[in-house]
Amino acid sequence: MENQNRSGTAGKAIRCKAAVCRNPGEPLMIEEIEVEPPKAWEIRIKILSFNQKLKNTTVISWWVSSVVESVEEHVEEFQEGDMVVPVFRPNCRECRDCKSQKGNGCSIFGGELVPAMPRDKTSRFKGMNGETLYHFLSVSSFSEYTVVDVVNVVKISPEFPVDKACLLSCGISTGIGAAWKVADIEEGSTVAIFGLGTVGLAVAEGARLRGASKIIGVDLNQEKIEIGNTTIYLNYVDKTSKYLPKKNWGKTVILGLEMHRTPLPVNTSLLLRGRSVTGCLFGGLKPKSDIPFLAQKYLHKELNLDGFITHEVGFGDINKAFDLLLEGKSLRCIIRMD
Amino acid sequence: MENQNRSGTAGKAIRCKAAVCRNPGEPLMIEEIEVEPPKAWEIRIKILSFNQKLKNTTVISWWVSSVVESVEEHVEEFQEGDMVVPVFRPNCRECRDCKSQKGNGCSIFGGELVPAMPRDKTSRFKGMNGETLYHFLSVSSFSEYTVVDVVNVVKISPEFPVDKACLLSCGISTGIGAAWKVADIEEGSTVAIFGLGTVGLAVAEGARLRGASKIIGVDLNQEKIEIGNTTIYLNYVDKTSKYLPKKNWGKTVILGLEMHRTPLPVNTSLLLRGRSVTGCLFGGLKPKSDIPFLAQKYLHKELNLDGFITHEVGFGDINKAFDLLLEGKSLRCIIRMD
Repeated sequence: MENQNRSGTAGKAIRCKAAVCRNPGEPLMIEEIEVEPPKAWEIRIKILSFNQKLKNTTVISWWVSSVVESVEEHVEEFQEGDMVVPVFRPNCRECRDCKSQKGNGCSIFGGELVPAMPRDKTSRFKGMNGETLYHFLSVSSFSEYTVVDVVNVVKISPEFPVDKACLLSCGISTGIGAAWKVADIEEGSTVAIFGLGTVGLAVAEGARLRGASKIIGVDLNQEKIEIGNTTIYLNYVDKTSKYLPKKNWGKTVILGLEMHRTPLPVNTSLLLRGRSVTGCLFGGLKPKSDIPFLAQKYLHKELNLDGFITHEVGFGDINKAFDLLLEGKSLRCIIRMD
Repeated sequence: MENQNRSGTAGKAIRCKAAVCRNPGEPLMIEEIEVEPPKAWEIRIKILSFNQKLKNTTVISWWVSSVVESVEEHVEEFQEGDMVVPVFRPNCRECRDCKSQKGNGCSIFGGELVPAMPRDKTSRFKGMNGETLYHFLSVSSFSEYTVVDVVNVVKISPEFPVDKACLLSCGISTGIGAAWKVADIEEGSTVAIFGLGTVGLAVAEGARLRGASKIIGVDLNQEKIEIGNTTIYLNYVDKTSKYLPKKNWGKTVILGLEMHRTPLPVNTSLLLRGRSVTGCLFGGLKPKSDIPFLAQKYLHKELNLDGFITHEVGFGDINKAFDLLLEGKSLRCIIRMD
């Protein structure tokens, strides 16, 4: 297949900069890497901006705005120049789970995470010594270029501001989706949110959009309250037992893991009158349909995304963005590709 | 208000026999008691038959078929001679929760259980020495007569067999409701049931009615399997980890309390892909509308109730019924009023 693009890079490896995690817990290293061309059902994208998330493995991050550099065979949904956001939660749109209205799993691609491409389990990244660099959450966007499978990427309207599209690719969507699709908040509801980081505040934004009449925020960090974009009553953890969900149909939605994966002790007598506990990844959103829906809400000025951007740094200062996050000082820090 | 009925008992106390729990854990005593007339919003009913349940306090039991003996003012739904089943789960049909399609709580009468009538918190029972005897779960049906509030009693079609109506007043309805309304089992689903007593087997019956394609039963008692009315695969508890609910939308419904109220340790990572854990009382059924619905299903030969009746005894042998239950030998033992 003859494959060409405007910059003449299609079909060839691209040398570019990436922030590489060489050892867990250590600062990321900005290195030159080689990004191979996509294979079938894959596209290579040029990263425009992203916001940081905790580091973990080799070429990391999964929050990003980007533009399609080249596509391979069996890719009909995208073409060069499209603005896209990659997403860690796959959405093939063909399987039983993707076709169901319930949940946002994908029965074909939603299994165990591998640090490689989802179809052939190989990497598209090499270090300068020819060594394999690994992928992270099917996205690996702390790089000037990356390769993603078509099931892990969503097209965004060209009207959408490039530097903000990255906000839709994980945490904010997670919080809004959890409020909208999983908790399915009804008008007039009371919502309590435990933890007012980006995800928690996005839950508040989702609750506001759904017409919640009272939103109670609980966090140990008093400063967080100043950043919120909705009315939040600050309370302390020792008062949390006051906020049991409503008897008969109240829902608790878990959006993260317990520290050290300690099981959550659930008093079953609290469930017997109809309360429920559930959880979700990516807020129960089906990326291919729900990210464009949220993007439209933003363009129509119904959804507040701008309030989540607290800092901006250049790519070379990526480790500063992590420090801000770990110190509890930032919500989203946009990292611009220089 | 002049209040009369055919037997001339309306408005007067009735002396009759009741099985009274004098001390927890001891056999019930068949005693003469005095049952006062109903007050406003109450009816007095004559018990026809019931099936036993674990003893607990004074005049106990809450599974019963009965006929209305007399009614008091503000009672429009019932008249003398109606066949009724009392239910422990109140259903006023006026409050926010009763009017909601979600859950089966009652925001007016569904609060803390008191061992008395729900409105004025007084008892309608006296022992022969004039001492107060207490109510149990708003029903107290181990007596020839009892008094119930209108929110705790449901009228049954006169076509319905008297000796079987009692089966709808708790456990069987609980199991069917849990399958039908709470788990909301879909055609072709796989259902695993832990514990094959009456409630568990009623879940199987509910799952069959909803078109489940595979029903897996798990119980330590091998004999239970012979009693079941649907195809059940017997498995042992050490294999239960195989039966996690489906990723993305599988539901776990809890129908009882943990022994000693030990909290249930829930691995939150199992919930993050959309599984949920919930519970219910009385199978999430709204008694006033759902018991007549189940009664119709039985009359149309769609619902199997008869398979649950394994024994019958007279009132004087009530303690035998408990022994059978504790030995795991019975499902429902009908106790006939002699």
